[in-house]
Amino acid sequence: MDSTCKINAAMSIWRRLSLFVLASSLCLCLCRAEDSAMENIVTEKKAEESHRQDSADLLVFILLLTLTILTIWLFKHRRCRFLHETGLAMIYGLLVGVVLRYAIHVPSDMNNVTLSCNVNASPATLLVNVSGKFYEYTLKGEISGSEINDIQDNEMLRKVTFDPEVFFNILLPPIIFHAGYSLKRRHFFRNLGSILAYAFVGTVVSCFIIGLFMYGCVLLMKQIGHLGGDFFFTDCLFFGAIVSATDPVTVLAIFNELQVDADLYALLFGESVLNDAVALVLSSSIVAYQPEGDNTHTFEAMAMLKSFGIFLGVFSGSFALGGATGVVTALISFNFTKLRELPLLETALFFLMSWSTFLLAEACGFTGVVAVLFCGMTQAHYTFNNLSPESQDRTKQLFELLNFLAENFIFSYMGLTLFTFHNHVFNPIFIVGAFLAVFLGRAANIYPLSFLLNLSRRNKITSNFQHMMMFAGLRGAMTFALSIRDTATYARQMMFSTTLLVVFFTVWICGGGTTQMLSCQKIRVGVDTDLENFIGPDGVERSSTKQESAWLFRIWYNFDHNYLKPILTHSGPPLTATLPACCGPLARCLTSPQAYENEGQLKDSDSDLILNDGDISLTYGDITVSTDATGAHTSGTPVGGVAVNSDEALDRELAFSDHELVIRGTRLVLPMDDSEHPLPLDSRRHWHKNETMS
Amino acid sequence: MDSTCKINAAMSIWRRLSLFVLASSLCLCLCRAEDSAMENIVTEKKAEESHRQDSADLLVFILLLTLTILTIWLFKHRRCRFLHETGLAMIYGLLVGVVLRYAIHVPSDMNNVTLSCNVNASPATLLVNVSGKFYEYTLKGEISGSEINDIQDNEMLRKVTFDPEVFFNILLPPIIFHAGYSLKRRHFFRNLGSILAYAFVGTVVSCFIIGLFMYGCVLLMKQIGHLGGDFFFTDCLFFGAIVSATDPVTVLAIFNELQVDADLYALLFGESVLNDAVALVLSSSIVAYQPEGDNTHTFEAMAMLKSFGIFLGVFSGSFALGGATGVVTALISFNFTKLRELPLLETALFFLMSWSTFLLAEACGFTGVVAVLFCGMTQAHYTFNNLSPESQDRTKQLFELLNFLAENFIFSYMGLTLFTFHNHVFNPIFIVGAFLAVFLGRAANIYPLSFLLNLSRRNKITSNFQHMMMFAGLRGAMTFALSIRDTATYARQMMFSTTLLVVFFTVWICGGGTTQMLSCQKIRVGVDTDLENFIGPDGVERSSTKQESAWLFRIWYNFDHNYLKPILTHSGPPLTATLPACCGPLARCLTSPQAYENEGQLKDSDSDLILNDGDISLTYGDITVSTDATGAHTSGTPVGGVAVNSDEALDRELAFSDHELVIRGTRLVLPMDDSEHPLPLDSRRHWHKNETMS
Repeated sequence: MDSTCKINAAMSIWRRLSLFVLASSLCLCLCRAEDSAMENIVTEKKAEESHRQDSADLLVFILLLTLTILTIWLFKHRRCRFLHETGLAMIYGLLVGVVLRYAIHVPSDMNNVTLSCNVNASPATLLVNVSGKFYEYTLKGEISGSEINDIQDNEMLRKVTFDPEVFFNILLPPIIFHAGYSLKRRHFFRNLGSILAYAFVGTVVSCFIIGLFMYGCVLLMKQIGHLGGDFFFTDCLFFGAIVSATDPVTVLAIFNELQVDADLYALLFGESVLNDAVALVLSSSIVAYQPEGDNTHTFEAMAMLKSFGIFLGVFSGSFALGGATGVVTALISFNFTKLRELPLLETALFFLMSWSTFLLAEACGFTGVVAVLFCGMTQAHYTFNNLSPESQDRTKQLFELLNFLAENFIFSYMGLTLFTFHNHVFNPIFIVGAFLAVFLGRAANIYPLSFLLNLSRRNKITSNFQHMMMFAGLRGAMTFALSIRDTATYARQMMFSTTLLVVFFTVWICGGGTTQMLSCQKIRVGVDTDLENFIGPDGVERSSTKQESAWLFRIWYNFDHNYLKPILTHSGPPLTATLPACCGPLARCLTSPQAYENEGQLKDSDSDLILNDGDISLTYGDITVSTDATGAHTSGTPVGGVAVNSDEALDRELAFSDHELVIRGTRLVLPMDDSEHPLPLDSRRHWHKNETMS
Repeated sequence: MDSTCKINAAMSIWRRLSLFVLASSLCLCLCRAEDSAMENIVTEKKAEESHRQDSADLLVFILLLTLTILTIWLFKHRRCRFLHETGLAMIYGLLVGVVLRYAIHVPSDMNNVTLSCNVNASPATLLVNVSGKFYEYTLKGEISGSEINDIQDNEMLRKVTFDPEVFFNILLPPIIFHAGYSLKRRHFFRNLGSILAYAFVGTVVSCFIIGLFMYGCVLLMKQIGHLGGDFFFTDCLFFGAIVSATDPVTVLAIFNELQVDADLYALLFGESVLNDAVALVLSSSIVAYQPEGDNTHTFEAMAMLKSFGIFLGVFSGSFALGGATGVVTALISFNFTKLRELPLLETALFFLMSWSTFLLAEACGFTGVVAVLFCGMTQAHYTFNNLSPESQDRTKQLFELLNFLAENFIFSYMGLTLFTFHNHVFNPIFIVGAFLAVFLGRAANIYPLSFLLNLSRRNKITSNFQHMMMFAGLRGAMTFALSIRDTATYARQMMFSTTLLVVFFTVWICGGGTTQMLSCQKIRVGVDTDLENFIGPDGVERSSTKQESAWLFRIWYNFDHNYLKPILTHSGPPLTATLPACCGPLARCLTSPQAYENEGQLKDSDSDLILNDGDISLTYGDITVSTDATGAHTSGTPVGGVAVNSDEALDRELAFSDHELVIRGTRLVLPMDDSEHPLPLDSRRHWHKNETMS
């Protein structure tokens, strides 16, 4: 990420918050002494005026968001599913953009004499001596030659333009953290292999396919003279990377509402969460690809390797750092158990530790956004268990709110930008090419990978699921933030304009057509998400244990369940039971009194419950009910017997970890006594309702 | 407020967030062309370095807050009351300040050539041409001559220094809003007259007493040659205004914990909330006092009148604006009743509307902080009633968290500043004078006003209450924010250093000695806050109805209860019952169906319950219990009879507004049937516990 910080990075994390306020643009290097008292008053007036103007500009955004909320309410009230709040925010943004662009004319009474003076460096801070008084100036960023003329004309429009870094340092972190924190980890882990394949292999494939295709377009444009500036192959690859980050927020909201298959949901959500991180690191690695010498745009193996090294280093560094901060938070909340009595302190601690992950990653030169993602996942897995019920609610609600505000702000800003951004380069060939490339890239990601994955998956990804995933390749916040980050060159400006159109199209058309697509692909809706695991959409029964990636996951899961969970949370078996006998004293020292209590208890607040606390009970009830109702489908669920298949046992434990009665330190073999406590259907409905609301 | 924005105001609201990052300070006006590629890479490296440094600096603050939270936990766990979290945050800040100042030496390898060039204006934005590329610079603020030399020496220290405007635009608003939103309005309104007197008259008196005393000190210092710069009478008055803002957060926390007399609590809290607003507007009016002509520091009647006009205009404008936004929010939440099903949208709307109050006030040239205070009070009074229970919790928790973080951030920053601020001017005479002046000013506020108020109050403010109020005159966040806002001149620097010491002393000594002072003044603790109203601390029974300011308040209350509440909330009587018959159609149109339901209902979610929902039930139970237990004290509480005194009825309605059975549009005469549903003692304890926790 740091390497993409061209000139903008010169601005500090805080200064990045700034609105571009060009009250006037002067560079007077004349040495004249005038009446300084009058000068002071004029400056003060101007400053006041500027401050008021800024407040008014921000107010426009706040009112836009308010309007969006009120309209969303109307839509939700009438159960309109064709337009999501983000799509709506974009429409309002567009409208305001049109008004700002064409309807409002600000009299340019400002002092816009531009006397340029040549300086041989661009320091972060400048001291200017004005009639004996020193004023401090800070670097804002580079301005292209064409913009200089715009500055005088479009002050109003420039004023509503945010510093791009605000997206990376303020708006993206809560969105990404929320994604990690609200991941339904049970389904995520069961499809871990496929998700990793889509996110890593798929994104890289998509990036190169799009990059190559676009390079073809660029060559064509060069041939017919449609290209107005440089456009290198690395630029094409960069474009491929940024449009490979999918953000199916609209689709997922509808999935949640309609209770679409949990595995499909997990695949889409998991992929979109991780490929944001991959695309971000990938794009910064591509920017870092700089062959030495004069010939800076040819291929060079060393530079390529270096880029690859940067990718691996930054990604694994951010991953490790995010995980580590999460673990530290878990340890603190584990040891300061009395903190549970003070939910305010607990929530504040949680918030601060999560924020410090971002800052720590940035300070170490890693990518804060990626670190925050893994921090969110760790927090959900460990820390969440140690929090008091009130803090669990508070933290969920807090990040839900931050996510909501940040997301809608970004989307409404996107709409606004289409009209207020100055250096749009709309090239028909490039745009058509980009749409084709995005389609091809997504297809090259989903279909071949699904085919390969299906070879090893016992629970196949059916073709209608594949079509749905293909269709749900929406582009959103991350793509926008990456493309607006640097709009200095001609190539980047063309990319930005095209990206905007891609986002608009996918959010409105693909997002709006989700329900149609679902019914067209005959994907069942309104099904019990967990029942779905036992009876496939094709009607053929299949055991939920027949998931892929079990071998990789089982190793991790055993380690996590037997060692990490007991050390970091109050759930799980006591360490004395899981560690070898020789580590007895250590185990006793590390085991909390609660763990012993847990040993004999049925109730275990496993964090898999994070999104819907009824999830596990639900599954439990569902099996019972489905067994009762269908009779024939009992073969998939053991009835009071001892499970012989270790895979089955693992999966069942994931789903029913609160039914562990005896833990023996190794793979558990647990007798299922489902039939003893069947949940009434009413409580099932209740939980489902909760799930839909969340 | 705007008029106090000297040069700093030149920075926009967003740019004000910036850390002073002086990576290097150059003003090169030499026109040389060098190798621009190398230059670019160097700039980029510097930018990255600077960004990392900023993240690390902010991380220091986050870790400081984390440490504070963990230590507070220890203190709360051990029930230590001598040190509040804010005092603790200051101590940690001091320690880190010492380390930064004396232990860390950053090698100054930066390029610190300072070539000054004289310019005849200080525009908000500067365009600098660096070897053909244009860079945009924005105005940071003025730098005094002495600072220019410091810049090279103390880069490290300047880096951890925040822009003062960050306090006004980011940290103060949530604190002040929370104060307004969490005001226990029942006790506040019963003591409205006294609170207004202390806040308005008292603060102005205190300001002038301190100003005059300090002017004496300054004259003395001038005589003996201890003054190193200009120090005018307006500066003294300004100092008086800023140190007149009290912030007894420590004391109130202890009051809450120990359940000290509710009226004392209301007087102190109400005064401190309002005098922040008064001191803020007062200080900006003093800055606006500028006699025309050359003789700018003499007395001039016209300028004085103008200042007074500014005070009134800004204060009433902010008040009206804050109230108006609150009412608009109430109307939205009233009409969009189905919004209650979506707590996330509701909370987001509430948050956005409250934030827009701040921005709107700033855009209109009023004071955002003051507007936010009154917005908070209006939101609590009207909007809170329309929110769903979940949103009520969410909004309370959200602003509680923001308040907690902002407050502790300010106090830890205060500690840090003592060592990292560069231009401290510690003058022994001024410091001793200031402590004396603060003492005198507080005494001149409390004692004479209490005497005058006691003339009309039937429920006298006893002398031990007066001593306690005198003692609880802590200075805190607002005083600090006002004093750090402008430290350009010698006088302001001396004020800032002295203010810091005053804050430290009052928070540690007065805050720490609260429990001692309570026992020394024999103020009873652990009493039922509402029982206290019926039996005075002197043991003599007194009716809670014998409060002052009833006549003023009754008019407002009647209007509010009969017209505003029915229009803005779902509680209160239907308008058809309160409006004259001629307005029948209008009334029917404005009355919600719920209001009719309310008419027949016992349960009314009156917003007086905001802090502790059990407040009213509590009172209700308390009277019954106290009547049962003491026997002799039954005269103060009507037992099933009809209240004859209109004052009594008013007060009772405030306390028991959920027992209104029949509303007749005029003053209500309600039969009390307390004895029918006495609350068991257990539930009382439960409520009290809640209250203590909150």
